[in-house]
Amino acid sequence: MAFGIEVAVVGAGKTPFGAFPDRDLRSLAVEAGQKALANAKCQPEEIQAFYLGNFAGPEFTGQNHLAPYISTALGMTGIPSTRFEAACASSGAALFHAFMGVASGIFDVVMVMGVEKMTCQSTARVTEILSGAGDCDGEVRAGSTFPSLFGMIARRHMHDFGTTREHLSAVAVKNHENGALNPDAQMRKVITLDQAMNARLIADPLNLYDCSLISDGAAAVILCPADQARRYTDKPVSILGMAQASDYVALEQKKDITTFPAVKLAAQKAYTMAGLTADDIRFAEIHDCFTIAEIVALEDLGLVRRGGGGFFTAEGGTRRNGAMPVNASGGLKSKGHPVGATGIAQICDVVQQLRGEAGERQLKRNSIGLAQNLGGSGATCVVTILGQD
Amino acid sequence: MAFGIEVAVVGAGKTPFGAFPDRDLRSLAVEAGQKALANAKCQPEEIQAFYLGNFAGPEFTGQNHLAPYISTALGMTGIPSTRFEAACASSGAALFHAFMGVASGIFDVVMVMGVEKMTCQSTARVTEILSGAGDCDGEVRAGSTFPSLFGMIARRHMHDFGTTREHLSAVAVKNHENGALNPDAQMRKVITLDQAMNARLIADPLNLYDCSLISDGAAAVILCPADQARRYTDKPVSILGMAQASDYVALEQKKDITTFPAVKLAAQKAYTMAGLTADDIRFAEIHDCFTIAEIVALEDLGLVRRGGGGFFTAEGGTRRNGAMPVNASGGLKSKGHPVGATGIAQICDVVQQLRGEAGERQLKRNSIGLAQNLGGSGATCVVTILGQD
Repeated sequence: MAFGIEVAVVGAGKTPFGAFPDRDLRSLAVEAGQKALANAKCQPEEIQAFYLGNFAGPEFTGQNHLAPYISTALGMTGIPSTRFEAACASSGAALFHAFMGVASGIFDVVMVMGVEKMTCQSTARVTEILSGAGDCDGEVRAGSTFPSLFGMIARRHMHDFGTTREHLSAVAVKNHENGALNPDAQMRKVITLDQAMNARLIADPLNLYDCSLISDGAAAVILCPADQARRYTDKPVSILGMAQASDYVALEQKKDITTFPAVKLAAQKAYTMAGLTADDIRFAEIHDCFTIAEIVALEDLGLVRRGGGGFFTAEGGTRRNGAMPVNASGGLKSKGHPVGATGIAQICDVVQQLRGEAGERQLKRNSIGLAQNLGGSGATCVVTILGQD
Repeated sequence: MAFGIEVAVVGAGKTPFGAFPDRDLRSLAVEAGQKALANAKCQPEEIQAFYLGNFAGPEFTGQNHLAPYISTALGMTGIPSTRFEAACASSGAALFHAFMGVASGIFDVVMVMGVEKMTCQSTARVTEILSGAGDCDGEVRAGSTFPSLFGMIARRHMHDFGTTREHLSAVAVKNHENGALNPDAQMRKVITLDQAMNARLIADPLNLYDCSLISDGAAAVILCPADQARRYTDKPVSILGMAQASDYVALEQKKDITTFPAVKLAAQKAYTMAGLTADDIRFAEIHDCFTIAEIVALEDLGLVRRGGGGFFTAEGGTRRNGAMPVNASGGLKSKGHPVGATGIAQICDVVQQLRGEAGERQLKRNSIGLAQNLGGSGATCVVTILGQD
């Protein structure tokens, strides 16, 4: 792969995440899009292509053909306007294709958005819709849900590496501690280790506080060639490297369920493109759909040694003042997880840190950040490395 | 826009279209993918990215996250594997992004596929799922279905231009005449003008023979840079120009419902990229989801004068021996319309004609062909111009 043109993020905007019974999918999307345009001091007419990440809008809301439905509402007509689906990595996949569109010189200014409206359905129906990201003829028909799949991953990780119940809860406590400081987070509530360890069981060993939230929300970014970025912002952020990778959908097809080859491959390609290694990363936003997912990702991204993710977390290594701050935003656990929006929301959070605009959550180690967006139980992964320009 | 590298289609394969109660979505997809690989004498390991067009697989079948679900079954693991949704132009949109991936030099060999499995649902439920491509809060809530939306378009076209009931039926008669010769067509049945004009009313003025079919099927192509094409085939086909464009989703938002700005814009951009005009096109595969759609597209593509589409059709201009053969494959009307597969199936049909492999349907005027793939009532359009290398 050869990318000729350096790509910058010149605008970012998102809605708060939460349960918004009075807001429909499009109004959330338009809010995020308008905020991103305003942030980039950019007019809708300047946008040359629209990349929408959305996992299951048609099933949650009935509305399909969502890309032109949203782009026209933002005043962007005529342009290529396409929806990308890759489970919970849908907007990560949209970003990867938008990045290629700009890096290749085909488009100059593009908008990438993620959106999901989930709370209009019951929790049982949400669980069923999310199960569509697994293998419906196999593991799902056999009774698996995503909590149970990640429960198996957690149990095996405990068996193989000595990860403990306390390690899992340390992820939740840390992410809630961070999310409590994030005005856009869905659950701004500090929890104690005791609360986290003794919550209601969902899928053994995962309990309520090991699971991310059911959320409504949208996030958007504007990309352009780095050499045009100053037209739009004084604080451009460069995409130093990024990659998307895939793997089997069914968990049972994986040789080892405590590591995701798609994450390792995407990370390796992104590091190579950026000319960096894991040692150069200063902070990360990681796809903590479940607490165990953050622990496994820490290892697959090379940020800690294999099997060491739980121990590192329990020792405070991923706290804001730790050696590798992870999910200073609060993560999917506390910030919320409108699945199609999550990939771009992570980018917005990394951009905010790189720009020094993260308020009470601002990290000091903020020169190079990584975002990791996961689809299903590891079948899709998008890794993006961003840096100050 | 600047595209550095010429792109060729080096392999094409598809399933028959029809109602296949014993086949699931993935088995259709794998069949098409394997046929395309075999046609290009290409190994799965050579494919560097997978682009899947699918409109509503999750709603029809329950399975989402379809791209890696299919690519891994074809032996293509690790690579970027993404689903594209743009209503009935989903696989056209996948092709556009795959084309950019290769034209930009980012990928060398990629697979683009379209698939849909529709007949597992009742006709009423199919109609409801397809309605998701319209504006659900507006026209759909008010009772519109796609037959009724295109019925309004037909009625207005009749009013404005003198198009007649007979003109509409002439499209159906011609497409059935062609499809009867296509071994992969769903409805291989010649119909008379009398039958076509007097069929059961669906949405005035459209009757049963004005509407395309509910189908299962898949189609796939392999793309690579034109200068590498001879490694894969003796009969490469070049993508001379292509473009994707968008417009409002709701029909009521359009100023004039007898013309689709997205079609005109996509055509204009594709002609410009190819350095051609409509006069250079020798044959076309046109998105005849309804007979009136073929008439309107003929005009928007510039292949006939505005308002002249019905007259031209009734005079035989679009028959295989006419001045501008359209839908020699049988079109969506007779060949079938598995919506997410249609855009790539059109490409397969054009490639077959350009290679001189269309059997009884083979056209003599076969040097340059155009495919037009429409989403919704004109909110998405992809136009592709292909030529013999």
